[in-house]
Amino acid sequence: MSRYEKIGALLNQDRPGYTLPQQLYVGQEAFEFDTQVLLKSVWLYACTVAHVKQPGDFHLFEMGNNSIIIVRGRDGEVRAFHNSCRHRGARICATQSGSAARLMCPYHMWTYGLDGRLLAARDMPEGFDKGEFGLIPVAVENIGGLIFLCLSDNPPPIDRVKADIAGQIAIYDLEHCKVAVQEELVEDANWKLVMENNRECYHCDGNHPELLACLGSEGFGKGLPEDGATETARIDAERAEWKRLGIYHDLIEFPEGWWHRVARLPLANGAVSQTMDGKVASRKLLGPFTEPNTSSLSVWTQPNSWHHFCCDHIVTFSLTPLAPAKTLLRTSWLVHEDAVEGVDYDPANLTAVWRATNRQDSDLCAINHQGIAGDGYRQGPYSIEEKLVDYFKRFYTGNARKALDSEPA
Amino acid sequence: MSRYEKIGALLNQDRPGYTLPQQLYVGQEAFEFDTQVLLKSVWLYACTVAHVKQPGDFHLFEMGNNSIIIVRGRDGEVRAFHNSCRHRGARICATQSGSAARLMCPYHMWTYGLDGRLLAARDMPEGFDKGEFGLIPVAVENIGGLIFLCLSDNPPPIDRVKADIAGQIAIYDLEHCKVAVQEELVEDANWKLVMENNRECYHCDGNHPELLACLGSEGFGKGLPEDGATETARIDAERAEWKRLGIYHDLIEFPEGWWHRVARLPLANGAVSQTMDGKVASRKLLGPFTEPNTSSLSVWTQPNSWHHFCCDHIVTFSLTPLAPAKTLLRTSWLVHEDAVEGVDYDPANLTAVWRATNRQDSDLCAINHQGIAGDGYRQGPYSIEEKLVDYFKRFYTGNARKALDSEPA
Amino acid sequence: MSRYEKIGALLNQDRPGYTLPQQLYVGQEAFEFDTQVLLKSVWLYACTVAHVKQPGDFHLFEMGNNSIIIVRGRDGEVRAFHNSCRHRGARICATQSGSAARLMCPYHMWTYGLDGRLLAARDMPEGFDKGEFGLIPVAVENIGGLIFLCLSDNPPPIDRVKADIAGQIAIYDLEHCKVAVQEELVEDANWKLVMENNRECYHCDGNHPELLACLGSEGFGKGLPEDGATETARIDAERAEWKRLGIYHDLIEFPEGWWHRVARLPLANGAVSQTMDGKVASRKLLGPFTEPNTSSLSVWTQPNSWHHFCCDHIVTFSLTPLAPAKTLLRTSWLVHEDAVEGVDYDPANLTAVWRATNRQDSDLCAINHQGIAGDGYRQGPYSIEEKLVDYFKRFYTGNARKALDSEPA
Repeated sequence: MSRYEKIGALLNQDRPGYTLPQQLYVGQEAFEFDTQVLLKSVWLYACTVAHVKQPGDFHLFEMGNNSIIIVRGRDGEVRAFHNSCRHRGARICATQSGSAARLMCPYHMWTYGLDGRLLAARDMPEGFDKGEFGLIPVAVENIGGLIFLCLSDNPPPIDRVKADIAGQIAIYDLEHCKVAVQEELVEDANWKLVMENNRECYHCDGNHPELLACLGSEGFGKGLPEDGATETARIDAERAEWKRLGIYHDLIEFPEGWWHRVARLPLANGAVSQTMDGKVASRKLLGPFTEPNTSSLSVWTQPNSWHHFCCDHIVTFSLTPLAPAKTLLRTSWLVHEDAVEGVDYDPANLTAVWRATNRQDSDLCAINHQGIAGDGYRQGPYSIEEKLVDYFKRFYTGNARKALDSEPA
Repeated sequence: MSRYEKIGALLNQDRPGYTLPQQLYVGQEAFEFDTQVLLKSVWLYACTVAHVKQPGDFHLFEMGNNSIIIVRGRDGEVRAFHNSCRHRGARICATQSGSAARLMCPYHMWTYGLDGRLLAARDMPEGFDKGEFGLIPVAVENIGGLIFLCLSDNPPPIDRVKADIAGQIAIYDLEHCKVAVQEELVEDANWKLVMENNRECYHCDGNHPELLACLGSEGFGKGLPEDGATETARIDAERAEWKRLGIYHDLIEFPEGWWHRVARLPLANGAVSQTMDGKVASRKLLGPFTEPNTSSLSVWTQPNSWHHFCCDHIVTFSLTPLAPAKTLLRTSWLVHEDAVEGVDYDPANLTAVWRATNRQDSDLCAINHQGIAGDGYRQGPYSIEEKLVDYFKRFYTGNARKALDSEPA
Repeated sequence: MSRYEKIGALLNQDRPGYTLPQQLYVGQEAFEFDTQVLLKSVWLYACTVAHVKQPGDFHLFEMGNNSIIIVRGRDGEVRAFHNSCRHRGARICATQSGSAARLMCPYHMWTYGLDGRLLAARDMPEGFDKGEFGLIPVAVENIGGLIFLCLSDNPPPIDRVKADIAGQIAIYDLEHCKVAVQEELVEDANWKLVMENNRECYHCDGNHPELLACLGSEGFGKGLPEDGATETARIDAERAEWKRLGIYHDLIEFPEGWWHRVARLPLANGAVSQTMDGKVASRKLLGPFTEPNTSSLSVWTQPNSWHHFCCDHIVTFSLTPLAPAKTLLRTSWLVHEDAVEGVDYDPANLTAVWRATNRQDSDLCAINHQGIAGDGYRQGPYSIEEKLVDYFKRFYTGNARKALDSEPA
């Protein structure tokens, strides 16, 4: 019998088209299952190649009790290691990001190469073999510049995700972007509620005035506006333009057994970027673009990320659980590496839409968590605008069952 | 075997006339039992009708993980509902009190009537029946203006409490009072220690100078003063006056199987109200009173409230557990609805005695909890001045045993 | 089967010369075992006689959920009691240190003598016998002025520790010292990691510039400097001087089955005291010393203390666990009782070396704990400079096994 027996019983209470049972959202046992089992059995989005732009640049990714070092090697490859010295276990990198010629533990100065090999350890007993004490590696995949990790020794397939995403985002050329702003928000809600919140716009009308100024009525989960015919005509025209530019692809929406959605979607009100005024936030356009007439390409992955590629900037979100009711949301705004702050872009303007939206969502997720924690909570029905929430829920329950089945008895 | 097996073993260590075993005060398991079982099997005092004076006024009552909306309907009735939307579970009311024409969830705008019926939910799938998705109701009783809740589907009897209390407090006419000041204090102690602290004045002499200025020597648990004869004569005279006014009743003290105490008790030092100077705090007297010669009528209920009705104002206390060592005490001071702040009453003067007393008690409860948590704690004997503490303890142990017996195996 | 079955399994994963398994450092169950079983089966260092200099002076010692009163009696004896009133369990002493003619509980004024006997309790029922309600005593030993406690009813032997330490520290005459400064630091690490940190200087070179200015190269766990011959000659000369003064003893280093280390060790760079400039911090030398040419005598005890006796001052450290990742380190700097602050010593100068060192160590212990908590942690090998860390680890595992064996089934 698995130590997560209770999780199995809760999964059996799942109802099609309804939210999960209370304890899967708020329970300590579910948090332990999620962070120790489920989220180690799947790929997680961590950051972009722009976060570790130069050899020696590192970026930390946290999940539950884990801290992972993502580091660019001298050979340009991006690798990942557990942030724990093989001597007495101290964290080697103590800041969220930085740059170092070697990875040196600040405690007793054990020193590792950027490839994880132990290079130096003073005064060790005879017979000590440095070859046995390299950093513990973590599986990593670079998908067109998006870095995914898997904490399992036996990661699941990722090939179709790679094929579907890498091709479409290649044009944005992440290797020549830089992180203009990175922001962390710790939300007082279970990570699954933060995900559910992201997967629908049923809540947008009442809560997100800034986002609605630019967010289109199609594909983000909002219903069509009253004047449907005019809107449809506008969207068709936009889509024709993308085809002319050679950047049109059919919608990819969580194909059977996979965990990604990719869509170029029209923005609203003539916006060409996700900004307050709908204009570009950075004057240096990305990739080959010379005109901003490309709307935005959006990528969603289960179980922890979403990304919007505009002609002038990219916004990318990763989230990870820290505690049953604490979730870390890290948002990064990327611009062209040649864009100059204060000249080509204003960070406040660049971040305004999503900074406001993140805070609004954080408040909503907190009251969602609190309300679910009470005895009056009942599993509730999703609306027809919450199809993608249901997709996420099914990804969760499906992978949870699979992970439970492969747990040692 | 109940999941609360350990609680049964602890109850078996109860000794007549002594405090409870350590783990019933400080243990996580006891906290879960108290909030999930015991306190759901009894009636809890929540607030007064003056807290929800107008139709649409709501007041939240919190207990452990629960938040309950108490709301006045258009028909004037006071109802109670779990504060959790039937859609995805979010808290509907996010502020402790307020007023609303309808109860609208801020997340996705599902909208309920003040009677809990679901009125509006956008874009739901075919076959969705609003009639099945009303707010989950909570049992409520209005006892002369004091609102009691029970979180059980099968509430225990309350008729004798109602009869004994409603009659005596009717004269204070709570429907025509208003909340002048409400204050919350989170005490660092188990809720049962906060209750025990309230049920005796054995600790008053050394700790409560402000309270002692007005609190009488009879009925509050303090011993008689040195000069007993003089005091007895004074009390007899006062009691004769109450009889003349028709407001005298015999003491009701936790009758067998019941959980209320009602007593009109003499104040000290000629005080006519529970204030620092013993004078009235509000110039608009309550009910039919024209002279302040009525002392105070006090009501205590198990397991979570006490109330003092003076001629000019009412102080009412509710407490609920938030964590094993965190208890919420909410104190409200009520005055006549026509009394004008700054003219008829000064909030600082109105609240001075109990604000000081609450803080002193909070400090005492904290050192009580800390000391009990240590290995040197032994169940200790109650003094003869702590009879009402023993009553509370017996209410707790008796109802705990009853609740355990009816727990599913 | 013991309720600490899991601890036994973890102890079986211990590897000679390697750090402990993860869960013994970071687990909640290990914390409970440590504070409820292991640390109650051994002697703990609490404070010095100078902390309770006069009759009625008290000092609190905290460990996990426990608070112990250490108090000097009218007869000059130092005694220890659980800080919990026998009435309703409140903490009697609410400040970390103080002075009182009697120990009076602030809740209901029950009053105890300095010897723990109950002297007064008002209004108790007939048959109440004060003789049965004294404070619960804790075993205490005064070793040359260092106060050790044991929370067991059956303390292990301490005679050899007493003999070895008391004789050597007698010359510093703790009864005529006073506490000049006491400082508390709550470290974000398991207590065993704080101990391991103290037991080696392998980490000193990279982290402790202030300490290295005065700390010698011998005996503190650092390797010898490059120019070994010169250093050895210098140390030999210093040792000859100690012999001339009659204060030389052979190193005592955790003799088989015991838990103390005593060593007079040379300071570096001509320092005569553990100060930033190597000069004395207090002009009133301790005991019979007239010249500062005595280096320092250091005492280490398992599982929770270390002490440095200089000619002019003493620094003494006690630590206790508060939570799995919270440890209280209390550091006291003692000077001669006749030394006058601002005249004979400057508190900032007196405390500079260890205040800086403590903070550096606290940061290191925190990253050590965090790194161990991750999945990438592996038990790691101690260097040859970490012999005393290994001694501590073996004390821990040995006593843990012994305590487990004597746990009731």
